Amino acid sequence: MSSFVVALDVGGTSMKGGLVTSAGEVLLTDRRATPREQGPEAVVETIRSFIGDLAARGDGVPAGVGLAVPGLVTADTALYSANIGWRDVPAAAFVPLDVPVMLGHDVRTGGLAESVLGAGRTVSDFLFLPIGTGIAGAMIVNGEPYGGASGWGGEIGHIPVFPDGETCACGQVGCLETYASASAVARRYAARVASLAAPAPSGLPLPAAPAAVDGAGTPVTAEQVAALTAAGDPVATQIWGEAVEALALSLATYTLLLDPSVIVLGGGLAESGPLLSDPLSGRLRELLTFREAPPIRPAALGVSAGMLGAALLGWRAAGDPGAGATWRLDVPKSPGVA
Amino acid sequence: MSSFVVALDVGGTSMKGGLVTSAGEVLLTDRRATPREQGPEAVVETIRSFIGDLAARGDGVPAGVGLAVPGLVTADTALYSANIGWRDVPAAAFVPLDVPVMLGHDVRTGGLAESVLGAGRTVSDFLFLPIGTGIAGAMIVNGEPYGGASGWGGEIGHIPVFPDGETCACGQVGCLETYASASAVARRYAARVASLAAPAPSGLPLPAAPAAVDGAGTPVTAEQVAALTAAGDPVATQIWGEAVEALALSLATYTLLLDPSVIVLGGGLAESGPLLSDPLSGRLRELLTFREAPPIRPAALGVSAGMLGAALLGWRAAGDPGAGATWRLDVPKSPGVA
Repeated sequence: MSSFVVALDVGGTSMKGGLVTSAGEVLLTDRRATPREQGPEAVVETIRSFIGDLAARGDGVPAGVGLAVPGLVTADTALYSANIGWRDVPAAAFVPLDVPVMLGHDVRTGGLAESVLGAGRTVSDFLFLPIGTGIAGAMIVNGEPYGGASGWGGEIGHIPVFPDGETCACGQVGCLETYASASAVARRYAARVASLAAPAPSGLPLPAAPAAVDGAGTPVTAEQVAALTAAGDPVATQIWGEAVEALALSLATYTLLLDPSVIVLGGGLAESGPLLSDPLSGRLRELLTFREAPPIRPAALGVSAGMLGAALLGWRAAGDPGAGATWRLDVPKSPGVA
Repeated sequence: MSSFVVALDVGGTSMKGGLVTSAGEVLLTDRRATPREQGPEAVVETIRSFIGDLAARGDGVPAGVGLAVPGLVTADTALYSANIGWRDVPAAAFVPLDVPVMLGHDVRTGGLAESVLGAGRTVSDFLFLPIGTGIAGAMIVNGEPYGGASGWGGEIGHIPVFPDGETCACGQVGCLETYASASAVARRYAARVASLAAPAPSGLPLPAAPAAVDGAGTPVTAEQVAALTAAGDPVATQIWGEAVEALALSLATYTLLLDPSVIVLGGGLAESGPLLSDPLSGRLRELLTFREAPPIRPAALGVSAGMLGAALLGWRAAGDPGAGATWRLDVPKSPGVA
């Protein structure tokens, strides 16, 4: 008798897999590298063998498989991913077993998990916003993740927050992501420090670079910028404040358009907790004059969200669309699966 | 036998009513002033007597009543309208007959009509954007208008397009509406002309005001600014271009978030046709680098959209949720009901 599904969350650098029962028990979890540099076929093959290996560790045949992948995706085809490089991969290609499969978009599958099991489980309309290397949102609309007419929705990381601002890697101007992703915060801090250390073009004296960063351009992380901000470093505080402002403007726009019950922050940058959420909540309230600001909450599932959402997809594929309703929340919140 | 519903679209200055059969035949239409200055009770009473009068002109008892109202509204209660001043008015208070009633939000009810009968009838996910005295959008999501968690969604007129821009009447900064509504275009043109006519604060000479507007501050309309733009007037062209830029930024944001199949422009400003839609389409395509821009189409139903949407609500109340699917489009496109 089948009593588990195989769940897999495929990221650009690694994949998180697990076996999850219909009662929500996570029987085991595992992780494997995503061989992106070897091309899309190698990635598909790695997924296929990982799913086979996971399934073999369960007791019997899995009831289904759920798979969260990046890019454009329908329930039965991975249509396109710029990140991985595949096009039109049918669900069956990922699975070495004859069991039902359901695919989902990575961010929206994480949003599904936060919706059914996590920080959004008491509401039906909210934004799940993981802030990591990039920024994309899962819009939960009438209780389900919504991807728009063709599945390209939720690109809140690329809305033009500052129309006369900095050019984003995507070629657009003033995108949220270019100010507020974890990588943007690190990059902009290092650049600001470097510009302060360099001789001013006008010849005017400028303050010296903060001692925390050496002149040789030692890489900085967003966590370090957060720590420097907490410690009162003026440059870090400025960069952090610009990220908060870009996020607040984006969330004001999202709120005015989509009227969410709550905004759920996830991803690496949200790990800084109140250092981010307190000024962000305050600024969002200031920006909205004629309506209330939705509360901002931390995500509940951490990096497990994608794998747990994939488990929900697996159970849906297996014919149990209500899976998750009674699951207990005993998953690790952070930093993730074991 | 009942073969018609009473449909009413309540606006801030006037109400458009009609009798519509289940086959979509508009038996008659009529119009009455909205006595807003007399207070909310007078408005409710006027709606009630207007509905009674319309119903009496039909053959028999209506199968239902559909009513589009501004503000916050559920299917059975008009919760709040700043414009009209009412709070918590039950649907039954609007109707002097014992027949089923359904209420709807004014802009979203117009969007419902464009969705079922009009410019959006071939797609299930789009934005209906009427640009008039104000700007609000109807977001059609999975085939139905979506109002967000509490019904406050669609406020695209107040998203912060230019975060360092002009203060809006709502108190927020840089709202779309303060640049691109019909009234904003007229107001900003008049102000720009006045500022050019006035002595420059710095004492520098500035170009004289265009001949088309006298120095006494004659009121200008958006239609006049459109005509001046078409004629090559430099100040009008500048103001028009700023409205186009604000709209393009807003539609870029909407597209990145909600991925609509199409954007349907309605309202007074859209009457200018290609003078608005051509530069807007072009600029939207420029702003979006990594995805296609949705096509921009004119609305099909003109000022009849709200009344026709109310007719659809009336038929839904009467137990015919599929009403509209077979209706023929013989409604006047513009300027509206007879």
